[in-house]
Amino acid sequence: MKLYIGNKNYSSWSMRPWVLMREKGIAFDEVMLRFDSFSADSQFKQAIAAVSPAGRVPALVDDDGLLVWDTLAIAEYLAERFPEKALWPTGRAARARARSVCAEMHSGFGALRGAFPMNIEARLPEVGARLLAEKPAVAADLARITALWTEALAASGGPFLFGDYSIADAYFAPVASRIRTYALPLPAEAAAYVQRLWATAGVQAWEAEALTEADFVPEDEPYRTQR
Amino acid sequence: MKLYIGNKNYSSWSMRPWVLMREKGIAFDEVMLRFDSFSADSQFKQAIAAVSPAGRVPALVDDDGLLVWDTLAIAEYLAERFPEKALWPTGRAARARARSVCAEMHSGFGALRGAFPMNIEARLPEVGARLLAEKPAVAADLARITALWTEALAASGGPFLFGDYSIADAYFAPVASRIRTYALPLPAEAAAYVQRLWATAGVQAWEAEALTEADFVPEDEPYRTQR
Repeated sequence: MKLYIGNKNYSSWSMRPWVLMREKGIAFDEVMLRFDSFSADSQFKQAIAAVSPAGRVPALVDDDGLLVWDTLAIAEYLAERFPEKALWPTGRAARARARSVCAEMHSGFGALRGAFPMNIEARLPEVGARLLAEKPAVAADLARITALWTEALAASGGPFLFGDYSIADAYFAPVASRIRTYALPLPAEAAAYVQRLWATAGVQAWEAEALTEADFVPEDEPYRTQR
Repeated sequence: MKLYIGNKNYSSWSMRPWVLMREKGIAFDEVMLRFDSFSADSQFKQAIAAVSPAGRVPALVDDDGLLVWDTLAIAEYLAERFPEKALWPTGRAARARARSVCAEMHSGFGALRGAFPMNIEARLPEVGARLLAEKPAVAADLARITALWTEALAASGGPFLFGDYSIADAYFAPVASRIRTYALPLPAEAAAYVQRLWATAGVQAWEAEALTEADFVPEDEPYRTQR
């Protein structure tokens, strides 16, 4: 299987299936398409257009050539292809809940995403504090994510959102990264979950490789002028 | 099962599971929470907060009380609960492709959504022509949807995107509504698909009930001052 991804420092969508497959021991070859810009004539857009009609990373190409794009579709595809890996929680109610929070994440939290683009190697605590104070919609997004995590962890008993590590945890890994970069305040239980999630092998491997990158992508850098 | 929805004239997210269940013969009780506004203290937001922690419609409550929210999670839940209904295409490759286009729709097409909010009973062809000409991102979204439909129909042979009616068709029903309201131009094959989709029993029932509503919701009406 080939997984096409963008820069590890910036590409929150790419991070999800990559850390999921690493964490669950699903072998794949990574093909990184470096971000230069996101204009139609950029090298990145031309490279991904040759792979996927949706023109975005991530995209998965299975051994028989079958293309699956968009993070959530990739996750569902992998869950079907590797049932023994239990990518979704095995209980019916937990699985429905896990799918609900992933779908909510997939379409929502626009204020948080917009204010705090993923940037693994950056440390921007003053930006975090300022935008949380200035933008109620950003604070509301963070409060909803905190509530969602707290409720799931209380119901499952942890250590991950639905007990064992699942797609839902991979889905929130980029949020955990934002919480670190922008030093967003969390209650103790949610903060401990972020620590556990960040310590997983998949996330640790992704972070290590993100830190070796040298690209500075202006469209992903509203707050800095260089690395 | 109870399905909580918003106004049929406006709520594109609610439309998807409703027309899917109607079309596939899955029985449910509808609970409509009328939109007044989307501010935190609105009647709508208070009513849905009592049902779902995500604070949005649609939300599904199964007979045993299990809550599932967010359209795509509801669709996956129903596909598991009613395997005999074949809500996803039965072939592995078609199913992966159907999930890809639904996930792409779930998180994308922000320019089209923003410019053309669903408004089933309105007819605003001049707004459609103007914004398509003025906003390249809106035109690009429409071009991508057209390409996606055309490719899927060519691969499956129709009459629906992946042959028989599936979740993917329910997912694009609100787009079909926008194409009608704003008179967006389409090539012949895509236009014929919109006609077939609009003629399905589920969509026809939804439209008929949308036309009986009298609410005018200013936040969903950037182009009119009254119905």
